Amino acid sequence: MTDPSTESIHVSLGADSYDIFIGPGLLDNAGDRIKAYLQRPFTVVVSDESVWAAQGAKLSKSLTAAGIKFETVIFPSGEETKSFANLQYLTEALLGHGIERQDAIIAFGGGVIGDLTGFAASILRRGCQFIQIPTTLLAQVDSAVGGKTAINASHGKNLIGSFHQPAMVLTDTTSLDTLDLRHIRAGYAEILKYALLGDAQFFDWLEENAETLIKGDQTKRVYAVAHSCRAKAAIVADDEKERGRRALLNLGHTFGHALEAAYGFSDQLLHGEGVAVGMALAFDYAVQINLCTENESQSVKRHLRRIGAPDAALALPNSNSLSATQLTELMMQDKKVEQGRLTLILPHRIGDAHIVKD
Amino acid sequence: MTDPSTESIHVSLGADSYDIFIGPGLLDNAGDRIKAYLQRPFTVVVSDESVWAAQGAKLSKSLTAAGIKFETVIFPSGEETKSFANLQYLTEALLGHGIERQDAIIAFGGGVIGDLTGFAASILRRGCQFIQIPTTLLAQVDSAVGGKTAINASHGKNLIGSFHQPAMVLTDTTSLDTLDLRHIRAGYAEILKYALLGDAQFFDWLEENAETLIKGDQTKRVYAVAHSCRAKAAIVADDEKERGRRALLNLGHTFGHALEAAYGFSDQLLHGEGVAVGMALAFDYAVQINLCTENESQSVKRHLRRIGAPDAALALPNSNSLSATQLTELMMQDKKVEQGRLTLILPHRIGDAHIVKD
Repeated sequence: MTDPSTESIHVSLGADSYDIFIGPGLLDNAGDRIKAYLQRPFTVVVSDESVWAAQGAKLSKSLTAAGIKFETVIFPSGEETKSFANLQYLTEALLGHGIERQDAIIAFGGGVIGDLTGFAASILRRGCQFIQIPTTLLAQVDSAVGGKTAINASHGKNLIGSFHQPAMVLTDTTSLDTLDLRHIRAGYAEILKYALLGDAQFFDWLEENAETLIKGDQTKRVYAVAHSCRAKAAIVADDEKERGRRALLNLGHTFGHALEAAYGFSDQLLHGEGVAVGMALAFDYAVQINLCTENESQSVKRHLRRIGAPDAALALPNSNSLSATQLTELMMQDKKVEQGRLTLILPHRIGDAHIVKD
Repeated sequence: MTDPSTESIHVSLGADSYDIFIGPGLLDNAGDRIKAYLQRPFTVVVSDESVWAAQGAKLSKSLTAAGIKFETVIFPSGEETKSFANLQYLTEALLGHGIERQDAIIAFGGGVIGDLTGFAASILRRGCQFIQIPTTLLAQVDSAVGGKTAINASHGKNLIGSFHQPAMVLTDTTSLDTLDLRHIRAGYAEILKYALLGDAQFFDWLEENAETLIKGDQTKRVYAVAHSCRAKAAIVADDEKERGRRALLNLGHTFGHALEAAYGFSDQLLHGEGVAVGMALAFDYAVQINLCTENESQSVKRHLRRIGAPDAALALPNSNSLSATQLTELMMQDKKVEQGRLTLILPHRIGDAHIVKD
């Protein structure tokens, strides 16, 4: 368990503190680690069909080897799973399996499964424990860390949810081996985000290593995932409920969410792709209002193009049907709107973003 | 606003601290008080049909007089309103009315409206503010204070919910004038609970004043409601998330919930009636296992009979159809079950209850 290739990160949140473990092959011994967080050798694993088909056997085997009995609740893959109907289904299923306040359930999948399961855990008997085992790059560097949980509403994405920290996050970087390149690139956008919002040195590292990391170099993946989690953990520890600085993590997200909404949250635009374009738009806008130089903005967009991520709304499918009015309206539905005023995260330069109330 | 007949209580919970105001006629100037908690002069009032019909005009008038615009969401009266379907309906309606994170919505009604609205507020955009205006005695002394919110699940009552403190509680004791005697008596059971669990002197006061208080003496109502809220606030401030001492507030509730479930949470048995019988059963059981004297138990039951509350399961309608096995099974669905073990609150004597893990 103290394999030199495993990184561990402590997220400091008082009574809600937790550890993140990151390494190649952690799923093989997941049961041993998980056992320490269970009050009794029983849990419920929540997953989606594709993750369960590809990696369910590995997790099952390791839970059984550790003497942990478990039930499963498997959802269809895709953003539609984050619905009110599924939240009700999941909470009733967990109650049916006898989950108690002190039990911990497991979210085994990407951001959709993590968000839905974390939310269900936060409201089941007014809060039970949950463990995150993120299987996508996006979830590993972003959604599994920081305690934001949510489902989607008809008025927009993630509008119903809670802050509920996991008891532990277990990240096996080899989980990504079954992920297609498009999803890896989309998840990479969130890694790049940490560099752009506060870490110019990390941007330099990414300029050198992004391609090999995306291609599957495990050492570089562990480094980049751990670096991203540390950056996020530091911000979250500082401002768990997003009353201030945590908003920096939304760099690219207000633009990105509006684009996602315009595409009906469909597979036409992945969340990370929305964030990639959103970050490019944030730099564009920052240049327009003289916050940032054209040079910096070009570096970001060059980096996005080089790794094969979209760098502008025009690079998106059917982009001619996007209207500015529609996007503005969608942005005003953002959770961060206050008295009709949008909060934007805008860069002064690479590695230095600021919260701007518009 | 500093009327000598108005009591104010500060509930100390760090960033989540809030004030409770209790007095006769507070609804008439509710708007002025509420305004201080709004970031803009707009809110949504959530209520039920009977409360809105009886007292809606008064609240509307005072909001309008204070320059506050508002929308309403009115539900049918009754326990069935605490459903997943209504939670979804309410959150979507609040989003539709443009409620933002910094806004405060108003729960205007009894425990059902308070629980549903507080829960919706806790998950809307991961948490917005809400103000409690409790209109039943039960809500005034119990559910509106302490931040427990919930809806019911098919497996039992209040199994899905959150801890979410109100921004303010405004209690007009004249609201009870439109309440029928049965509901007053049921709410009174929760007042009696504070005496039985930790305050023998308050029990003596109630022995003398219960009847006039139930009949409508405003001064005694304000005193009893304020005394109850102070007792609850002290316990909640000590243990907000019910990890320890807060469980004392469940005196009579484990038995009571099981009875409510046996009656299908119907009007055949009100929550407070279940609690009244539950407290009598807790004393009976404490006598059986030699925790408490028969004498003390008889005093409690005599008090319940005198004020017209049920003092035993036999005093309930159709009680011959209640089976012990059924009740035990229902009790095991209690939120406080840990590893299959029930937690009971049992009295050593009047004014001295203890948490017992069974």
